[in-house]
Order: sequence, then structure tokens, then C-alpha cells
Amino acid sequence: MLLIPARQISGEIRENSPLVGCITNTVVTNYTANLLLAVGAAPAMVDIVGEAGLFTGVSDATLINLGTPTPEQREAALEAASFAHAAGRIWVLDPVAVGSLPVRTDLAKDLLTHLPVVIRGNASEIIALAGKGVGGRGVDSSDSVGEAIVAAQALSQTYGSIVAISGEVDAIVQGNTVVRIAGGSALLTKVTGAGCALGALIGAAASTNKDILSGVVAAHVMYAAASEKAAARCTGPGTFGVYFLDELAALTDADLDRISVSVEKIGAGDTAGGMGQ
Amino acid sequence: MLLIPARQISGEIRENSPLVGCITNTVVTNYTANLLLAVGAAPAMVDIVGEAGLFTGVSDATLINLGTPTPEQREAALEAASFAHAAGRIWVLDPVAVGSLPVRTDLAKDLLTHLPVVIRGNASEIIALAGKGVGGRGVDSSDSVGEAIVAAQALSQTYGSIVAISGEVDAIVQGNTVVRIAGGSALLTKVTGAGCALGALIGAAASTNKDILSGVVAAHVMYAAASEKAAARCTGPGTFGVYFLDELAALTDADLDRISVSVEKIGAGDTAGGMGQ
Amino acid sequence: MLLIPARQISGEIRENSPLVGCITNTVVTNYTANLLLAVGAAPAMVDIVGEAGLFTGVSDATLINLGTPTPEQREAALEAASFAHAAGRIWVLDPVAVGSLPVRTDLAKDLLTHLPVVIRGNASEIIALAGKGVGGRGVDSSDSVGEAIVAAQALSQTYGSIVAISGEVDAIVQGNTVVRIAGGSALLTKVTGAGCALGALIGAAASTNKDILSGVVAAHVMYAAASEKAAARCTGPGTFGVYFLDELAALTDADLDRISVSVEKIGAGDTAGGMGQ
Repeated sequence: MLLIPARQISGEIRENSPLVGCITNTVVTNYTANLLLAVGAAPAMVDIVGEAGLFTGVSDATLINLGTPTPEQREAALEAASFAHAAGRIWVLDPVAVGSLPVRTDLAKDLLTHLPVVIRGNASEIIALAGKGVGGRGVDSSDSVGEAIVAAQALSQTYGSIVAISGEVDAIVQGNTVVRIAGGSALLTKVTGAGCALGALIGAAASTNKDILSGVVAAHVMYAAASEKAAARCTGPGTFGVYFLDELAALTDADLDRISVSVEKIGAGDTAGGMGQ
Repeated sequence: MLLIPARQISGEIRENSPLVGCITNTVVTNYTANLLLAVGAAPAMVDIVGEAGLFTGVSDATLINLGTPTPEQREAALEAASFAHAAGRIWVLDPVAVGSLPVRTDLAKDLLTHLPVVIRGNASEIIALAGKGVGGRGVDSSDSVGEAIVAAQALSQTYGSIVAISGEVDAIVQGNTVVRIAGGSALLTKVTGAGCALGALIGAAASTNKDILSGVVAAHVMYAAASEKAAARCTGPGTFGVYFLDELAALTDADLDRISVSVEKIGAGDTAGGMGQ
Repeated sequence: MLLIPARQISGEIRENSPLVGCITNTVVTNYTANLLLAVGAAPAMVDIVGEAGLFTGVSDATLINLGTPTPEQREAALEAASFAHAAGRIWVLDPVAVGSLPVRTDLAKDLLTHLPVVIRGNASEIIALAGKGVGGRGVDSSDSVGEAIVAAQALSQTYGSIVAISGEVDAIVQGNTVVRIAGGSALLTKVTGAGCALGALIGAAASTNKDILSGVVAAHVMYAAASEKAAARCTGPGTFGVYFLDELAALTDADLDRISVSVEKIGAGDTAGGMGQ
């Protein structure tokens, strides 16, 4: 399998400035918008009923993040997912804290019926979304990426989604393919919204090219490369969050090429392991 | 025409600490509040029904920004605009993304009946608000400032508002007068909320003095001066956004005097050009 | 009276990573979450009806801040306070701008019936909450900490709460005991959400140990120590806000020991002064 390199996709984001509509939580709207701007994309937070659906037809990709799902946002999210699916647009689901919290768990199930093109979360969220666990502790994962691979595979096979799991080594699952991206800084876990904004970047990157998997991988590669550079010059989590934006805006091809990406085939269906191909 | 210099208005903001009530979008509340604090003003985000109207009588100016207009905010915005107008208070309308998105477009029309003292937006928003175009792409402008001058003049004549158009060279229109402010850094377009926070600063500056036009101009001059200084020392959009606050807090008279402001008379009514006076 | 030193409580926060559920205003969610992460705690903004109450049983502490109380948040706040009180969990009330604004003033009264473990605010808010004044100017205090001591004592005696008053010298009142924490930088008043995020940190610190008063004091000591270090190296309010997070993450025992804490007994009941014990 040949992935389009992150350097190409990063360049296409800067050139085309994809418009990403975001229905996301109040904690991270600002950082998400700034991050999209930093990479050359264009953000728009359109999260009200009567506009959210319509906007999926104007934008290049849509993010639906369940971090703080008010009743208005829940209805807008369903409107957007339904419109996006019907029109064959790229949309990304980030099921923040599903499993342990009931309202968003129900919403996530409803949203799945509109077949998200990409699902992005931490291990506990992916496991819970697949109905195989109870979710993490608040917004944090209590499971490892490895433990979530089978759940991701199940989600991918059921909904046709690409599933991205964030963790020490990120894993992206499409059917029987797993792509792993190593590297990146642990300081990303100390900046609220770093994970949530990744969902928006995935949307931007996935919209640049017909090979969506390559876009999802490229977003993770950009994160790994920029976070390492920001970590090298920061003096704590505050400056890290700010420098991360600077470094995303300044990524070079060499920075992106340095990140290690590996592809492997795993066992089919939900019979984990065993049947390597 | 003699404008009160920005140095004087900037000093009055620091001295009097005008209180600016903001009904604004969830993406930019934090940056808007920090920016008001940086210049010496006092922010308060009072955007719920039953308080928003009342608060226009307590505050020195009110900003109504349509970035993420939930049903609660829409009702609060109408309440605030109505109270502010009835009491002769300064209020600023920022019609984010009107034209292309229906809910906020309807709201903007309703708000106009309460005669905003200042209208602030990018070229596409001003054109759409004047009923002369369909709006931009998401929150971005697809028109130039020059193309929006006639629309701004029409709005100014119909509603009695001062209309400020953000772009490469900002233009502020009051009747047949156009004030242009050159300079400033393009990095302002890479920080989400820079435009939205300008609306709040306009409110603060316009409240310091009876000559409201001078206040609107001064806010733009402060932006131009501080953004140039921040751009000179930043390493990307993340640090730019942070340094911009520092530089706003540290503006000197000399910094402000350096920004070029020009005033001209344009043709009357909607017969663009031609009839220079 | 012997307080557990801030160095011990700060260490326990890093070790145990208490989970703090926050129902707070849209202006400060991001900064609050980043600040909790900086000290080693875990934030989760769970502010919708049907989840907020439930989450008080999962988290170690709950903050209810009245900065932008939408109808949904108001109902969620009452749900959370009721659940937290019934289960004997730590919850902190931050009555932002009560007194002058009616909706949140009514809400605050309703919330008091669920007996907040800690109440935190500026002098005007504490005075207004105790029914002894009309509140400040917007979110700012127009009273001094000294003037609020008697009101704090009344609140403490009526509701059994520990009452923390922010100002030039912070004061924390429990019954007839007043703890004063000197030091800290005035730049804290130039970063929106610094006060609101303190409420969340109080929750984290108070949850680490059975001696809640020591936790509340420790949160203030951490603020004083980190803000002084951030002020020493910043170039304005923008960088101050960022460095403050860095310095919170890097606090040493020596930094914390340097902050002066004094304890005194004051007159009983609401007969101010006079009856010193």
C-alpha cells in the first residue's frame, strides 16, 4: 500500500485552504480555529440548527465533536451528519467521553447511522463506541491504543469509517489495515483541545485528496513533527501550546519526512490477531 | 475634518476603563476579553436573556457579534440592541458570515432596525448586509474593501451607522466620508477572533468621546500599530496572537502617530464615484 | 491552627491527578482546562442536563461558575449541586457578577441551598451573595477584601462553606478563622479567567486531603508563587497568561514555601470586629 506523503498533503492544505465546518465543544473552539489557520486551512464554527446542515455543502469537511453537546448542538450535529452523508461529504466524528456519559453516548449512536467518514478518539472512546467497554475517566483514556485496535476494526467494518486512535503511538485503522505513526510529544496531552483540533485537521487533510486514508495519516504526521519541534523549545505546557501553532505553520518537507509511518495488515473481522494476511 | 488622535483616545481608554458588554461567539470570547483587558478596558460577556438588555445600561458600550448565534443569544441580542437603542447607548454590530447563512442573516436584519451605532465586518459581510451580495466563504471575505465602500455608504445613510470594513487597507465610512487606515500585519488574519475582538475595541474606543468616528478610527490605528510590532518579533501565528496582546498593552504615542490615516469625501448616495465633493 | 503546607498538596495533585468537573463560562473554559492540566489535575467540562449530576459522582470535585449561565447550564448547575451535596462531594461555587445581574443572582440563591463546600469570588460578589450589597461593576469588584470579611463570615456560618475572597491580599474565611495569603502579581487581573480557573484549582486542591481549608489555601499559594515568577519574565499580559501556565507546571517546594500565609481569629457572628478571641 502506497500512502501519499504528508509533505504533499500539507502543501495542498496550504494551497487550497480547505474550509472546515466545526461543531465542537466550547473548551476548544478557539484553539481549533487557530490550528486550522496555522496550517493554512479555513475554520468556521457553524453549530446552530438551520445552518449546520446547509454548511456541510459549502465546506470541504465537517467535524462533529461531542465534548459539550448542548441540546442545540445535538440537533445541529444530527442535521450536519445527515446532510453530509446524503451529499457524500467528508465528516469526522470525535466521540469525546462516550461510554461513561449517557447523553453523548446516545447521540454518538445516532450519528453513527450517518456513517462518519472518519472516527477519531482515544482508546477508551473507540472501545466504548464499538460497544466493547464503558469509556474512560472523564475525557481521558484508561485503555491503551493496542487494546482498541480490534474495536476500531469492528467500527471500520460496520460503518465503513477510517478509525484513528490517539495515544503514545497513534494507530489508524481501515478494514484490515493498520497504519502506525510514532513520535510526537507527550506535552500534547497537557494542552486542552490538542486532540479535538486534530479532528478538524483530519477533516482538512482528508479533503485535499481522493485517498482519504493518506489524509488522515498526514494529519497525524503533521502533529508528530510540529509537536516535537515545539517541545524542544518550550518551557512548559503554556508555551508549548503556543509554539505548536508556530511550528505547524512552519513545517517543512524535511520535518514531515522524518516521522516514521508503518503499515501492516491485521486479522480479519473481530477475530483479533491470528489471521495475518 | 479633524479627527481626535488615536493617542488621546488610547489614553482615555486606559484612564476610564470603559466597560464593554459583549454578546459574541464562543470561538473568540476569551481573546476578546483579554484584548479589552490589554488596552485597559473592562470586558463582561453578558449574553443571556433577562440580563443582556439590562446590562447595556450599566456598560459603556455593547458588542453584538453573530458568529455562533444560538437561540438564547439571538433573543439576548435583540433584547440588548433594543435596550441600547432606546437608551441612546453605543452598540456595535458585527454581522459575521451574513449572506451565506440564513439564521444569522435574518437576525442581522432584525438587529438593523435598532440602528447600530457602528457596523464592523469584512467586505463580503458589509456587501451582504446591504443586500448587495451573497456573503463570503464561511467567515472569510471574497470581496475587496474597495468593492464594499458603496455598500457601506448605503448602510450608513439608511441606518445612520458608521461602517468599518476590515481588509488590507481598512476603510471606515460615515455618510460621504471615508477614512482609510493603512498598515497592520497580515498575521491578524491568522489569529481567530482578531476581527471579532476589534468590534469590542471599537466599542471601548467609541465610548470615550463624543466624536464616535474618531473612536472607531483610533481602534483601527491601535490594531495597525500593535500588530506591526507583534509581527516583528513573533515566530508564527501562535506567538503573534500572544505578543499582539502585549503590544496593545504597551502602545506609545509614537507607535500610534506612525500609522497613516487619510480622509476623503466620496460621491453621494449609491451613485458610486463620480460626484466627488 | 496547623495548615498542611502547599508543597504537600501541590505534590498530591500531581500524584493523584484529581478529576475536576467544571460547569463554567464560555470565556474561560479553555484557560481553566489548561490550568488544571498544568498543575497535574484532569479537567472535564460536563455542563449539560442529564450528565452534570451524574458526573459529580465520577469526579473528585465540581466547580460551578456563573459567568455565562445559559438556561441549559442553569439547570445543569442545579442538578450538579444537588447531586454533589447529596453524595457529600466537594463542590465550589463561583458567583460571578451576582448582585447586579438578576438571573445569576436568583440562581446563586438556589445553589446556596445545596451548601457549597467552598465559595470563591471577589469582594463585591461575596458581599452581594451574603445579601449585604449590590455587587460590583460587571465582573469587577468595587469593594475591598477587608470590607468583605464580615460577609464571608456570615456565609460561612450560614452555609458551612469556606469562603475565599480574591484581591490584593487574598482572604479565606472559615467561621471565625481568616487566612490571608500575600503576594502574587497584579497581572492576574489582566488575564481573563485567572480568577475563574482558581475556582477549579481550589476544587482540585481541596479534594486531595481531608483538611479542605488547607487545600483552598494551597491553591491560592500556588497562584501567588507562579504568578510572581511569570510576571518576572513576561513582556505584557499576553505572555504573562502563557508563562503562568508554565510556572504552575514547574512550581518547586521552595517557590511555594516563599509565599507568606497568616492565620488569625476574628470576632464571632456578624458583629464585625470588636469581639476578637
